[in-house]
Amino acid sequence: MSFSIGNRLRLTVFGASHGQLVGSTLEGIPAGVRISTDEIAEWIERRRPSVSDITTQRKEDDSFSIVSGLVGERTDGSPLTFIISNKDAITSHYDELKDRPRPGHADLTLFMKYGEFRNYSGGGFLSGRMTAPLVAAGSVCLSILGKAGVNVNGWVQSIGDIESTQDADSPVAAYSTKTRMPDAGKDAEAVELIKKIMSEGDSVGGSIRISIKGIPGGIGEPFFDSVESVISHAVFSIPAVKAIEFGSGFRLASMKGSDALDTIYYDGQKFSTRSNNNGGILGGITNGMPVDFRVAIKPTSSIRKELETVNLVSKEKDSIRVRGRHDPCIAIRALPVVQCMSAFSILDLMLLSGNSQILNQVFPSGQERQVEDDK
Amino acid sequence: MSFSIGNRLRLTVFGASHGQLVGSTLEGIPAGVRISTDEIAEWIERRRPSVSDITTQRKEDDSFSIVSGLVGERTDGSPLTFIISNKDAITSHYDELKDRPRPGHADLTLFMKYGEFRNYSGGGFLSGRMTAPLVAAGSVCLSILGKAGVNVNGWVQSIGDIESTQDADSPVAAYSTKTRMPDAGKDAEAVELIKKIMSEGDSVGGSIRISIKGIPGGIGEPFFDSVESVISHAVFSIPAVKAIEFGSGFRLASMKGSDALDTIYYDGQKFSTRSNNNGGILGGITNGMPVDFRVAIKPTSSIRKELETVNLVSKEKDSIRVRGRHDPCIAIRALPVVQCMSAFSILDLMLLSGNSQILNQVFPSGQERQVEDDK
Amino acid sequence: MSFSIGNRLRLTVFGASHGQLVGSTLEGIPAGVRISTDEIAEWIERRRPSVSDITTQRKEDDSFSIVSGLVGERTDGSPLTFIISNKDAITSHYDELKDRPRPGHADLTLFMKYGEFRNYSGGGFLSGRMTAPLVAAGSVCLSILGKAGVNVNGWVQSIGDIESTQDADSPVAAYSTKTRMPDAGKDAEAVELIKKIMSEGDSVGGSIRISIKGIPGGIGEPFFDSVESVISHAVFSIPAVKAIEFGSGFRLASMKGSDALDTIYYDGQKFSTRSNNNGGILGGITNGMPVDFRVAIKPTSSIRKELETVNLVSKEKDSIRVRGRHDPCIAIRALPVVQCMSAFSILDLMLLSGNSQILNQVFPSGQERQVEDDK
Amino acid sequence: MSFSIGNRLRLTVFGASHGQLVGSTLEGIPAGVRISTDEIAEWIERRRPSVSDITTQRKEDDSFSIVSGLVGERTDGSPLTFIISNKDAITSHYDELKDRPRPGHADLTLFMKYGEFRNYSGGGFLSGRMTAPLVAAGSVCLSILGKAGVNVNGWVQSIGDIESTQDADSPVAAYSTKTRMPDAGKDAEAVELIKKIMSEGDSVGGSIRISIKGIPGGIGEPFFDSVESVISHAVFSIPAVKAIEFGSGFRLASMKGSDALDTIYYDGQKFSTRSNNNGGILGGITNGMPVDFRVAIKPTSSIRKELETVNLVSKEKDSIRVRGRHDPCIAIRALPVVQCMSAFSILDLMLLSGNSQILNQVFPSGQERQVEDDK
Repeated sequence: MSFSIGNRLRLTVFGASHGQLVGSTLEGIPAGVRISTDEIAEWIERRRPSVSDITTQRKEDDSFSIVSGLVGERTDGSPLTFIISNKDAITSHYDELKDRPRPGHADLTLFMKYGEFRNYSGGGFLSGRMTAPLVAAGSVCLSILGKAGVNVNGWVQSIGDIESTQDADSPVAAYSTKTRMPDAGKDAEAVELIKKIMSEGDSVGGSIRISIKGIPGGIGEPFFDSVESVISHAVFSIPAVKAIEFGSGFRLASMKGSDALDTIYYDGQKFSTRSNNNGGILGGITNGMPVDFRVAIKPTSSIRKELETVNLVSKEKDSIRVRGRHDPCIAIRALPVVQCMSAFSILDLMLLSGNSQILNQVFPSGQERQVEDDK
Repeated sequence: MSFSIGNRLRLTVFGASHGQLVGSTLEGIPAGVRISTDEIAEWIERRRPSVSDITTQRKEDDSFSIVSGLVGERTDGSPLTFIISNKDAITSHYDELKDRPRPGHADLTLFMKYGEFRNYSGGGFLSGRMTAPLVAAGSVCLSILGKAGVNVNGWVQSIGDIESTQDADSPVAAYSTKTRMPDAGKDAEAVELIKKIMSEGDSVGGSIRISIKGIPGGIGEPFFDSVESVISHAVFSIPAVKAIEFGSGFRLASMKGSDALDTIYYDGQKFSTRSNNNGGILGGITNGMPVDFRVAIKPTSSIRKELETVNLVSKEKDSIRVRGRHDPCIAIRALPVVQCMSAFSILDLMLLSGNSQILNQVFPSGQERQVEDDK
Repeated sequence: MSFSIGNRLRLTVFGASHGQLVGSTLEGIPAGVRISTDEIAEWIERRRPSVSDITTQRKEDDSFSIVSGLVGERTDGSPLTFIISNKDAITSHYDELKDRPRPGHADLTLFMKYGEFRNYSGGGFLSGRMTAPLVAAGSVCLSILGKAGVNVNGWVQSIGDIESTQDADSPVAAYSTKTRMPDAGKDAEAVELIKKIMSEGDSVGGSIRISIKGIPGGIGEPFFDSVESVISHAVFSIPAVKAIEFGSGFRLASMKGSDALDTIYYDGQKFSTRSNNNGGILGGITNGMPVDFRVAIKPTSSIRKELETVNLVSKEKDSIRVRGRHDPCIAIRALPVVQCMSAFSILDLMLLSGNSQILNQVFPSGQERQVEDDK
Repeated sequence: MSFSIGNRLRLTVFGASHGQLVGSTLEGIPAGVRISTDEIAEWIERRRPSVSDITTQRKEDDSFSIVSGLVGERTDGSPLTFIISNKDAITSHYDELKDRPRPGHADLTLFMKYGEFRNYSGGGFLSGRMTAPLVAAGSVCLSILGKAGVNVNGWVQSIGDIESTQDADSPVAAYSTKTRMPDAGKDAEAVELIKKIMSEGDSVGGSIRISIKGIPGGIGEPFFDSVESVISHAVFSIPAVKAIEFGSGFRLASMKGSDALDTIYYDGQKFSTRSNNNGGILGGITNGMPVDFRVAIKPTSSIRKELETVNLVSKEKDSIRVRGRHDPCIAIRALPVVQCMSAFSILDLMLLSGNSQILNQVFPSGQERQVEDDK
C-alpha cells in the first residue's frame, strides 16, 4: 500500500500536515539494538525549516517522541513508532487556495484524484512535512549502517548552474556549510545566488549526490528488486525529486562500451574496479564499490510572484499569490531526507540478502553486540 | 519477492537463459478480456535478436505458448502463463568465463552474492533473455491500454551523440526504422555510427523516450506508490538501464521556479497545463498531460575486443575475449521491453486507483465489453 | 510484515500496552465516505474492560481520536489514523513477573524470541489492549458493510458447556445480554457459571459464532486468498483464539458426501443452497449463503490461583500469583474484536474482487453517495 | 496476489487442470542447497491418484521436471520452477457440466465470480491437480526442515467415525498403511468403511493431524503473522479443508483456565511445558513444544449418485450424475498436501525470524554445509 514501503524493514507514515500530528512506524529492527534519540533529533534538526537564513523562516516545532518499540535505550523487537505533533496549524489560510490550484503543486492532481473531498490544507498528506517522520525512522537505519561500517554520504551537488567540485567524506560533513555543498568557495557562490533569487521572489533547483561507502558486494536481489529499483522507488516518493542517475548515468547513453566498462582487479584485499561508471551496481547487485547516484530536485513551486492559474469551479482564468515563507532552494532541506530514505533502502536490501555474515555485520548478536556497545 | 512485481497486477518471471525454458505469469486480468496472440507475437518479434543487420545475429526461437489463463480467445480470470522454450543452448561455451568475470557484466556480482554455486551460464536468471516473457506479459497490458485510449508511445531518443528530433506518434511508429529513431535522417546517421562501432568490435549507448498519451488525471498513489516510484522500480529491473528522468528531469536542477512550473488552464474539455516540465506527474499523481520520461541505456558490455580482467581463483590479472555475436547498441532491442514494462506499471496504477470509472474504461464489463469487441 | 494485514485495505497497529499510546492506521478507504465517530465509540465501548460485573473491573480510558484521514465527517482518501492514549500505566507492577513466566501467557515465548531485551510489561505489544485500535478500524469496515447490506452478525455461542440455542439477528443484537449469548435463559445460566468460576479464582473458555448475511456470491480469490484463508489469518491474530471451523466444520470429517453437499436451487431471485454445510464458501469463494464460522476462545490464562512456574534465570521451580483484575471469560470481550476483524477481512475481499458492481455497492460514488447519505 | 503465498519464501502456482501443464515456482531458497529429485518424486507419488485400491483409479502421469533454479544438484539462488505436464486431458467430458453445477463443488461460485467466461473444465485453476506442484515445492521445504532436525509428522487422524489411537513418528511413517492411519487395527476398520462407502457410490470425510517436532522456540511473528495465522492461511487454500484447531482447539472452549494452562518447567536442557493444550504456540510464537494441529477434510463432493441441481441458464431444477472415478475419502490423498504446505509455512516462519542461529540451523553455510552433505 502506498503509505508503507520496504521488504524486511517496513516503514509506514501517518498523519497530515495540518492535522494533530505526523508520525511513522518502522518494523523490522530486531530486539536489543541501542537507539540514540540524540542522533535522531540531530537529523530531524537538519530537515527543520528556518535552519539558516537561506531556508524558509517558517517556524515548526519538530520535537518528536518514540511511543513504542523501545525498552530503555534498546529496541524490544516491535516497531519503533515516532510521533511529531503539529502546533498552531492555521488551516483557514488555505481556504483561498481551495478553488485555485497552485501551479507546480499537487493541488490540481489531488482535485483530479479525490474530487470535492480532497484534503487541500497545506499539502495535507502530500505535504513536505510528512518527510519529518521519514527522517526520524531513516536516521535510525543510517546510524545502524554507520556502526556496521556503511556510510551514507550525501551533499548538495549543484544549485542552479553552480556545481560542487568536492565530495562530503562522511554522512554529516556537508552540514558544515549553509548550502550543504562541501567546498567553501562554491558554497559562497551559491549563497549569493540564492539571496538574489529570494530578492526576486523566485526559487531555484538543485541536485543531490549520494555516495554509499563500505557497502559489501552481493547486496541487491535479482530482477525486480535490483538496488537501482529499490533506491529509486524510495527516492521518488520524496516530493520534488524528478530524476535519478546511477554512476555515469545519462553520460553512459553516449559512451562506447570499451570506455564504459569498469575493469576488474584484485586490490590485495578484495575484488574491485578501476572506475565506477556503474555506480557500484552490476546486474542490480552491488560490487563493493561505492553506490553512487545523483538526484534532481526541482525548484520550489511556491514562489512569491503572482501566478496565473484557473478557477476549478468556474473554469475561468484566475491568479494566485502564495503567501507564507517558502524555501528558495528546497534541495538544501531535501538532502537529509534523501540520505535517510537511501539508508532505509540499503539496510532493507542488506537484510533481504539473508546472508548470515551480513546480518551479523549489521546486527551483531549477543556478546558481539556488547562489545560493539562498549566501543 | 524479487522475481515478481506489481500491486493489482502481479508479474512473475521464471526459468533461465540456458535452461529448458523461460516464462512468466501475469495475475490480475479479469475474466472475459479478449487476447490477441498475434499482437503478443509481434511484440516478442520486436525484441528478438537478429531483427536487423545492426542487432546481434544470434539466432533465438522466441515462439511462445500460453499454457493457462485463456479459454478460447478470452481470459478466464486466472493468471496468464507464457512459456518460451530454449532451444540448443550450449552451456560449455561459458565454461571459459567461469573464473574470469566479464567487466561490465553481472559475473562478478553473481560471484559475490552466490559464491561457488552461482549460475554463470549466459547470464542465467539475469540474462537479457528473461525479458522475452516480460514482453509477452507487458504487451497484453499495452494492448489493453490501447483499447482504452492510452497509448504507450516509445522510441530511441539518442544513440551515441545522435539525438532524434522527432517523436513517435503511436506505440509501434518507431519500428519503421532500423534504429527505432523516428526521423529518417537521424536514423541513417545512427546506422552509420553503429556500423562503424561494429567494425571496431565495440558498442555504444543510447537513450529511450516514453510518452504515454491519453492517460487520465488522478492516477498514482500518494507517497510511496507515486507514478515515478512505480515506473522507475519496473524500468530499473531491465538490464542496462542506469538513469531515468521525468519531464524536464535533470534540467530542472538548474531552472528557476518561475520557469519550471507548468501554468494551468482549462482547454475547453479538461484542465491542462501549457508546458510539461513535470512530465505529466505532480505530487506523484498524473495531471492528464502525457507521462513523459527518458531512460539511459548503457553500451553493451559484451564487446569483441580483448579485455583485462582478474581470475577469481588465483586473483591474478587475466584477460578475456567474449565470443558470440552481440548487439552493438542494445538500446534498440531494449525499447519494446521498456514500453511493455511501462505499460504494465501504468495499467497496474490505473487498477490501483480503485476508481470505478477508470476500471470501466480499462475493462468494460458485460454489454460494453461486447460492443468494444464488435468495433 | 507482522504489524500490518490486508490487501486492498491495509491495517497497521502500533504502540504498546504500557507505553504512551496504542493506535492503528487503516489505508484503502476512498475519499468522501462519511464516518460516524459515535459508532466507532460504541464498538470500542463494547470491547472495554469493566463493561459489566462479569468482566474485568480494571479501569481503562479508551477514548480515541482520529488524527488524520478525515476532513470534517468524511474521509479524504488518506489512511484513517486512530490514537488511544494509555493513562496511568504502572509498569513496576510487572517487575515481579520478569523472570517468572505466567503459564498460558506469551511471557515464555517472548523470552525465547527476544531474550533479555523483551518487553515484558503487561503483554507489551502482544497485550489484548492492542485490540482496541483494531476495533476502531474494523468498526469502520463493519459500518460501511452495513450500509451496503452486508451484516456481520456475531454472538457468544458457548461458555463452558452452556451452548446458545439462538442466533443474533444483527451485528449489535448480542449486546443486549451480559454474556452476549442471544437467548435470555442460557445467558442467565452462563452468568451463574461465570460468577461461580470467579469465586474460585478461575476462568472459563467459550466460543464465538459469526454469521455474515447479505454477502454477494463470487467474493474470495482463487487459491491462496480463499475466504477461509483470509478470515482465519485475521482471526488467529486475536489473542486467545485457538480454532476455527467454517459451516459444519469438524462435523464434516465424519459425514458422508451425500449428506454434506448443499443442494443448489433457484429461489426466484438468485441461486441458493438448501443447506449450508460449507458455510457459504465453495472453492474459497462465496456462494451467496451466509458466511458462517465458529471460533474457539481459550480461558483467560491470568487467574487468581497461585500457579507453578519456573525461574528463567535460576531455572528452578518457582510459583507465581498474578495480581490485578482479569476477565473470567474473555470470549465475552473478544466478540467485538472478532466481528470487527471479520468485517475488515470481508470488506477487503469485496474490494479485492475488483468487480465494479460490488465496488459501487460498497462505495457508491458521486450522486449515489449523496442519496445514500440522505437516507 | 492469490496465486502466490509466503513472506521470505514465495510460492506461486500456475497452469490449470485441463491445460498443457501445471507448475509452481518457489523463491527464497539460497544458493548451494542440495536438492534430491528422488525425494520430491516420492512426495508427488504420495499425492498421486490410483495410489491404492481405495483411492481414485484415475490415471495421471505426474512426472515433473525442474526447469530452473538448479545447477547440477544444487540450488543457484534463483526460484526453483517445477513443471508437470497434463497428458490426454479430455475437456469435452465436462461440457455436460457447463450449465449444471455439481453441488459441493466450486462450479456455482466460479459462475458467480467469472460469469460466462469461466474455466469450467475439471475444476480448471481450482482443481485438486493444482496441488501436485504445491507438493513438489513444499516437499523441498519439508526435506530442508528434516535435515535441520524439524520433522513435519502427519497422519490421517480419523475417517468417518473411526479415530486413530496412534501417532506417526516420522514424516513418512503414515504411508505404510493404506488409509495412512498409523495403527493397523484402525486402518483395517477404515478400509472396510471406505469399501462400503464406495459400493454405495458415496464418499466420506476425514481429519488430518500434523505434529511438527524439533521446532525451536521463538518462531512466529507478533500480531498478524502468528504461527496459527500463517499455517491456517496456507492450509485453507487446500481444497476440501473446512476447519483447523491448534492444540486442544475447540475443547478449550469448555475448559477452565486452571486446566487449560500448560505448566512450565526446565527439563534439564530447555524450558518446556508439562502439557500441550496450546499446541506449541503462545502469543502466536512457538514455545519449543510440538506444533500440533488437526484439520477437517470434507467428503469428496463428486459421488456416483445422481444428484439434484439447477440449470444455470433456464434456472429450472435439473439433475446430474458425475462421471469418472473419484476418491471415496480425499483426506487420504490430502495428507501429503497438508504436510508439504505446513512445511512451507514453518520454513517461511523460521526464515522470517531473522535469527542468524536459526538461519544457520536451516541453511548451514560454507564448511558446515559441506559437513552436512557428507553425513
